[in-house]
Amino acid sequence: MEHTYAVIMAGGVGSRFWPASRAESPKQLLDLTGSGRTMIAATLDRLQPDIPPERVIVVTGRITADAVARALPEVPRENILAEPKGRNTAPCIGWAALHVKRKDPRGVMAVMPSDHLVGNKAAFAGAVRTAVEAAREGHLVTFGVRPDRPETGFGYIEMKRGEGGVRQVKRFVEKPDLETAKKYVADKNFVWNSGMFFFTAERILAEIERQMPELSRGLSKIDQGIAAGDEQAVLSEVFPALPAQSIDYGVMEGAIKIACVPVDFAWNDLGSWSAAYEMWEKDEDGNAVEADAVLVDSKGLLVRAPKGKMVALVGVENLVVVDTGDSLLVCRRDRAQDVKKVVDELKDKGRKDLL
Amino acid sequence: MEHTYAVIMAGGVGSRFWPASRAESPKQLLDLTGSGRTMIAATLDRLQPDIPPERVIVVTGRITADAVARALPEVPRENILAEPKGRNTAPCIGWAALHVKRKDPRGVMAVMPSDHLVGNKAAFAGAVRTAVEAAREGHLVTFGVRPDRPETGFGYIEMKRGEGGVRQVKRFVEKPDLETAKKYVADKNFVWNSGMFFFTAERILAEIERQMPELSRGLSKIDQGIAAGDEQAVLSEVFPALPAQSIDYGVMEGAIKIACVPVDFAWNDLGSWSAAYEMWEKDEDGNAVEADAVLVDSKGLLVRAPKGKMVALVGVENLVVVDTGDSLLVCRRDRAQDVKKVVDELKDKGRKDLL
Repeated sequence: MEHTYAVIMAGGVGSRFWPASRAESPKQLLDLTGSGRTMIAATLDRLQPDIPPERVIVVTGRITADAVARALPEVPRENILAEPKGRNTAPCIGWAALHVKRKDPRGVMAVMPSDHLVGNKAAFAGAVRTAVEAAREGHLVTFGVRPDRPETGFGYIEMKRGEGGVRQVKRFVEKPDLETAKKYVADKNFVWNSGMFFFTAERILAEIERQMPELSRGLSKIDQGIAAGDEQAVLSEVFPALPAQSIDYGVMEGAIKIACVPVDFAWNDLGSWSAAYEMWEKDEDGNAVEADAVLVDSKGLLVRAPKGKMVALVGVENLVVVDTGDSLLVCRRDRAQDVKKVVDELKDKGRKDLL
Repeated sequence: MEHTYAVIMAGGVGSRFWPASRAESPKQLLDLTGSGRTMIAATLDRLQPDIPPERVIVVTGRITADAVARALPEVPRENILAEPKGRNTAPCIGWAALHVKRKDPRGVMAVMPSDHLVGNKAAFAGAVRTAVEAAREGHLVTFGVRPDRPETGFGYIEMKRGEGGVRQVKRFVEKPDLETAKKYVADKNFVWNSGMFFFTAERILAEIERQMPELSRGLSKIDQGIAAGDEQAVLSEVFPALPAQSIDYGVMEGAIKIACVPVDFAWNDLGSWSAAYEMWEKDEDGNAVEADAVLVDSKGLLVRAPKGKMVALVGVENLVVVDTGDSLLVCRRDRAQDVKKVVDELKDKGRKDLL
C-alpha cells in the first residue's frame, strides 16, 4: 500500500501485568500469548507485507526505546521515536504525524496500539486496506470490532444505520454499565472502539489545529526543531508540557467526516492477566501453565514462573500465579484488574526497583 | 534431675512442610513458629535447666547429623547418634537406651520428638518431673495432653478412672473418626498421645526383649559393637534390617505398668502448614506473613518468602503461599495435608534435588 505508514504506539507499561511488566520491560515487550513473540513484534508481523518495516514508526518512552529497537530489528532505528514523557495518545499521534508528513505529504497513517491481540491476520489486512482507502478520501477512520459479549471495559462506537464496509459514525460512547452494554451487544449498530485509527497526516494535523490549539502550537515548535536539525532539544523542552489528552476525546469525538470500518475478527486488548488467561492454551482442567508445575486438584489457573522453578498447586481454583524471581503475584482471576492496586502501593512504598 | 537423660528423636523430614522442609533441612531444623529458633533448639531449651545438654542424646539421620550438631552446639557431638536408615521409633529408642544404660545403669530416659511445640515451659518442666519420678518407680510413662478439640489426626489414650498427677492407662486408641473424637473430648478420661515417653533404659530394653525379640537381638549385636569399639560398622550392618516399628505399637500397647501424666499445656505436633498457621502471629485479617508483601483484600493467609522477594496477594483467602527460591507452594489452607502428594509426585518424577 503506497503512501501508507504504520504508527505503533508503545508508550505504556501495562501495569496490570505486574510482576511481568516493568518500566523497562513493559507489556508490549512481553510474550503474553505463548507464541514466542513479543506483543509488539506480533503487531509488526501483522502489518506485513502491506506496510514494510521502513514505513513503520514506533512511538515509545526514552527508557524503553532501546529495548523496542531490539525487539524490532527490521524497523530502522530512526523510526523509533522516544517521548521524553508520556502525554497520552493525542501528542503521540500528532508528533508521529509531523514525521509522516515530512516523509510523504500525502502519507496515510495506520495508528495502532502495540499490545493488542488480533486473531485473523488475513481479515485484519483486508480491513486495513478498506480503512486506508477511506482515510485517503479524507475520513478519520476507526476500526469497530463487533462485540461478542457485553464488555464494560471498552468504549463503544455507534454507527449510523447503513450497509457496507465503511460506515458513518453517529457518536462515541464511554465505557457503559453492564445493562447498557447488554443493549449494545443486541444492537448491530454498536461496535467496540478498538483504539486503531486511520487518517492522512495532513487531516489529523488539521483537526488538532482546529480542536486542540495548545497541542497544535507545541507540535509547530517541534516541527521547526525538526527543520532546524534540533528536534531532541526542542522535544525535551516542549513535549513534557503538551496537554495529556487522548486522541478519542481530544479529536475524534468532536470531528466531522468520521468513518468506521466494522470488523469481525477476534480482538483482545489483553487488559489483564485474566484476558491473557482466555487466550492461552489450557489443559482439561482449564489450567494455563507456563512453568514446571505439580498440580493437585487445581482448576482454572494461570501459572507462569521462570525456568528452573518448581511450582506446586494444591486444591486451588481460578487463580493467577506469576513468579518473576524478584516478585510473586497470587491473585484471584476475576480480580486481575486490581493488580493495579499492587502497583500503586509499590509506588507509594517507593519500590521503583519493582516497577 | 539426676540420672535423667533426654532422647530427642530427630529422624523425620516433615515432608508436609515442603518446600521449606527438605532431606537436608528437615522440619526440626526450621523455625516454624517465627521465634527465630529451630524446632529442635526450642526442644532443647525447654528441657533446661533440668536436663543439661551433656545428658541430651539426639537420634537423627546420617544426612542431617552435621546440621543437627550445628543447630545444637551445646550438645556434645558424640551424643548425636546418626541412624544409617530410618526404622521408626522402636529401634531409635532401643539404640538410645543402650547408650543411656552404658552412661548410667539407673538412667531414666525422657523421650521426645524434636519438632513439636509446647506452649508453657514451666508447666512442661513440672510434668516432666512428675513423669520422671513415675518412670524411676518402674512405669512406662506417657504424656497425655488434654484435648481442646475433636482432633482426628492424633492417637488417644484412655486412662483408668482416678485422680492425681499420674494415672493408670486403660488402653491406647488409634486415630478416631470425627464422631468418636467428639465423644473423647467430652470424656475426661481421654487424652491425646503426645509421643513423649519416660522410662528407665533398663525397663524399656526389658520390654523390647519381651515383646520385640527380633529388635532385641539386633540391639544386642549393636551393644557388643559398642563394647568392642566397633559401633559404626555393626550399626551399618544391623540397623537397616531392624523391624521398622513404632514404640507405641511395638511396646506401649502391649506393656503392663503403663502410666499417663495428664497435662494441660498447649501442645501441637505441627503436622502441616495449617497447624503452623494456627501458631503464628496474625494481623486483623488473619494473615500470618513472614515476607515482604502487599495484600489487597486478602484474608486467612500464611505467607513465607525469602528476604528480598516481594509477594503480592489480591483477593485471595485461606491459602498457604510458601516460596523458597527454587520452589513455590500455593495450597488451600484446609488442604495442607495434601502437600504430601506433591512430595510423592516429585519423588515419582525423580526430582531428588527438590526433596
